[in-house]
Amino acid sequence: MNILIVGITGQMGQVLVKTIEDSNHTVAAGIGHSNEDHIYDDFNDVTENIDVIIDFSSPDLLSPLLDFATTKKIPVVIATTGIDSMEEINKASKETPIVYAGNYSLGINILEKLAETVSRTLQNFDIEITETHHNKKKDAPSGTAHMLFDAVNNGRDNTLSANYGREGMAKRESNEVGIHALRGGTVVGTHTVTFFGEDEVLELTHTAYSKRIFAEGSLKAAEFIVTKTQGLYDVNDILEVNYNE
Amino acid sequence: MNILIVGITGQMGQVLVKTIEDSNHTVAAGIGHSNEDHIYDDFNDVTENIDVIIDFSSPDLLSPLLDFATTKKIPVVIATTGIDSMEEINKASKETPIVYAGNYSLGINILEKLAETVSRTLQNFDIEITETHHNKKKDAPSGTAHMLFDAVNNGRDNTLSANYGREGMAKRESNEVGIHALRGGTVVGTHTVTFFGEDEVLELTHTAYSKRIFAEGSLKAAEFIVTKTQGLYDVNDILEVNYNE
Amino acid sequence: MNILIVGITGQMGQVLVKTIEDSNHTVAAGIGHSNEDHIYDDFNDVTENIDVIIDFSSPDLLSPLLDFATTKKIPVVIATTGIDSMEEINKASKETPIVYAGNYSLGINILEKLAETVSRTLQNFDIEITETHHNKKKDAPSGTAHMLFDAVNNGRDNTLSANYGREGMAKRESNEVGIHALRGGTVVGTHTVTFFGEDEVLELTHTAYSKRIFAEGSLKAAEFIVTKTQGLYDVNDILEVNYNE
Amino acid sequence: MNILIVGITGQMGQVLVKTIEDSNHTVAAGIGHSNEDHIYDDFNDVTENIDVIIDFSSPDLLSPLLDFATTKKIPVVIATTGIDSMEEINKASKETPIVYAGNYSLGINILEKLAETVSRTLQNFDIEITETHHNKKKDAPSGTAHMLFDAVNNGRDNTLSANYGREGMAKRESNEVGIHALRGGTVVGTHTVTFFGEDEVLELTHTAYSKRIFAEGSLKAAEFIVTKTQGLYDVNDILEVNYNE
Repeated sequence: MNILIVGITGQMGQVLVKTIEDSNHTVAAGIGHSNEDHIYDDFNDVTENIDVIIDFSSPDLLSPLLDFATTKKIPVVIATTGIDSMEEINKASKETPIVYAGNYSLGINILEKLAETVSRTLQNFDIEITETHHNKKKDAPSGTAHMLFDAVNNGRDNTLSANYGREGMAKRESNEVGIHALRGGTVVGTHTVTFFGEDEVLELTHTAYSKRIFAEGSLKAAEFIVTKTQGLYDVNDILEVNYNE
Repeated sequence: MNILIVGITGQMGQVLVKTIEDSNHTVAAGIGHSNEDHIYDDFNDVTENIDVIIDFSSPDLLSPLLDFATTKKIPVVIATTGIDSMEEINKASKETPIVYAGNYSLGINILEKLAETVSRTLQNFDIEITETHHNKKKDAPSGTAHMLFDAVNNGRDNTLSANYGREGMAKRESNEVGIHALRGGTVVGTHTVTFFGEDEVLELTHTAYSKRIFAEGSLKAAEFIVTKTQGLYDVNDILEVNYNE
Repeated sequence: MNILIVGITGQMGQVLVKTIEDSNHTVAAGIGHSNEDHIYDDFNDVTENIDVIIDFSSPDLLSPLLDFATTKKIPVVIATTGIDSMEEINKASKETPIVYAGNYSLGINILEKLAETVSRTLQNFDIEITETHHNKKKDAPSGTAHMLFDAVNNGRDNTLSANYGREGMAKRESNEVGIHALRGGTVVGTHTVTFFGEDEVLELTHTAYSKRIFAEGSLKAAEFIVTKTQGLYDVNDILEVNYNE
Repeated sequence: MNILIVGITGQMGQVLVKTIEDSNHTVAAGIGHSNEDHIYDDFNDVTENIDVIIDFSSPDLLSPLLDFATTKKIPVVIATTGIDSMEEINKASKETPIVYAGNYSLGINILEKLAETVSRTLQNFDIEITETHHNKKKDAPSGTAHMLFDAVNNGRDNTLSANYGREGMAKRESNEVGIHALRGGTVVGTHTVTFFGEDEVLELTHTAYSKRIFAEGSLKAAEFIVTKTQGLYDVNDILEVNYNE
């Protein structure tokens, strides 16, 4: 596949370049800030032949990206976090196929399923979510933490609400989920969902040791989406997770 | 229910006495070492009316316990750990109903299911099990750790083998599960199952904060088994765990 | 010693009653809400002979407590958390001896020292603090978390500032310490100080398994303070922590 | 500096090559298995001008390495683990300067000091050590785990003994330290020292996120040792750890 990387000059963009170079695919062009050939500030300058787009940029590039993709009917893998609304993505997916996920690692997607299962099974247990990322991450909590909140909330019929920090005299409500964003060093990404019962605690933790797992997941998603003509997909449609009880 | 506690003078026996006193049931007698009334060294001395037996003793009392229970047709809850073979229990369960489980807490039984699910889903991930208990525990690894090994082994079609400690020049085999027994202080019981993939780790941990959760689970098991006439049951038959994906 | 327990009808008050009953000291009276003998709503009703006061209540009782103690010249151990200002306590300590600490456990006080040492040694590492307590705790973060922040802040010449929760597009400042308060179940108290460097993380965690350790620490403090005539002391003056490098 | 890397074709050797390439030093030659120029099976084939040797190989290369270094009076940094006896190294260090350490990361060396301090301060606490490494590591426990055992043993006047795994009916001795080696996936290296008291636990954990921290530490050690003429040094002599209480 000839791939356009949106956010090619960012950290994840660079990891994706290396991952693609080690595969049988090709980096055809990139959107980013650089004087290098085939890297552009503006989607309009892209003249290369593109089979699929992988986006590891930021929410402000979403609109021009979707314009470009829907006009040219190019499939898109969106791996950007911090996107507030699904409206634009939903609309665009009627014209070109899109994969959207908060996190493209295998382990995180299993964690999401486990968290939902436990939330549903242990209805009386309190739930808290903790995530840790490097000190350069701009948004908090992580897209994955939001995804995990949605998972445990599904397990409780959407009756839960998020609390992003506690200070002062404020007792916990039973339907409240504390979401705690730690930032420090070069940590790739750790997520924990904790279930607190009467004198017992169940804790589910995923630790990523390299950004490469996200790049590889997004590349698998690209291989999947390039065969479709339209529609919105998530990571479970792609990764070969045969999650059976 | 009138309950006979086997191992009444041990730590768990004493916790169970308090738990039963706080319930609407009665401690009718006990097997243990004490000069108190209704506590006997020998099952033959028990003359009280017994509805159900709860056993928190040690494997050497298993034979006399099962003799007593099968002769008198009294239902039994076995919560003793370190029992090597199920043969005697299987046989006795044809004459009197028995519940046998490595661990009577709700959270541990969920952990068992999750561990089996993840083991089956992430076939290429390496698995290790760690457990921590107080420094007076006699057997290692814990009955629960053995139970967790069985769970992950089920998820791999029984191809795994246990390794109880690594020392020297010995590289890990891919079908090997390290089982590590930490002992220290007054820790009630912590169990972790860890799944190691390429640059990512998924860790499932259960922490017990009091022995009371095991006593309460065994009492629920007694309430269940007292209604049966024969057969062998495990904790999943009893605890109201509606584990649905 | 004849002890007055302030907050005797609260959770910690009740644990302290049991701890004192197991010692060679006596609960002479209590401040709390109860119809029992020797328990009063108002300090003015206390007529018993009191050698020392132990306070596990709430900040709103601080003023009447200090009035009572300074008037009668009775030594005080303050174990209440959530007190905003040390002004009243400082003033009262000139008239009657006072011990004040955020946490009376041995392990926590070692953790405090380690955290300060590491903060000073690893000047370039980012620091975050996490604490977990049961779902009935009213204040957040815990008094101990505040104490740990002060410790790491000392190690950086008081240049750090606390951040009690991250949400939205807000990148971490290098002198910022995230303090995260998890609440759930019946957790007694867990505190973690994490130091994040370039591709390495150092994590120091203390877990309390029972409230009794705090009651026993406060009783040791009472045995210490009863011999003094005035002054403000902290837990390091009392616990036999011979912390030598 | 012109550097000879012993074990240049191994995983750590390759990481060190990249780290040196990003520095102002030069890889002059290597000992390893390769057809590339300047890489030799035998020390006798090395004709390049060498200022310092860094060794990330295995214990069986220790003798030829020390022969070569002492004959040519070249300073050596030994970062190989699994070396049983210090005898040869001690002897060689009288003729050429040597740095020897179980682990060249800053955080691990702080952990070592903290562990010794806590071991000495909390004399009654039980101690256990856990380490986790990737599934290709040949020796167990890690050199660092042995180093941490020595640290806590120092804090107890060398009265402790190591236990590398518990199985069967064997209660913990009070002077016993369980050392547990977990192996899985691609984990770079995690080490935990846990102190267990009465109802409280203090846990110190170091996590390495890349092998690069070890390469960089060994390069710092090389910069240090190149200025010496003889003697045996450890990592604390080199890293700028101003560890003050």
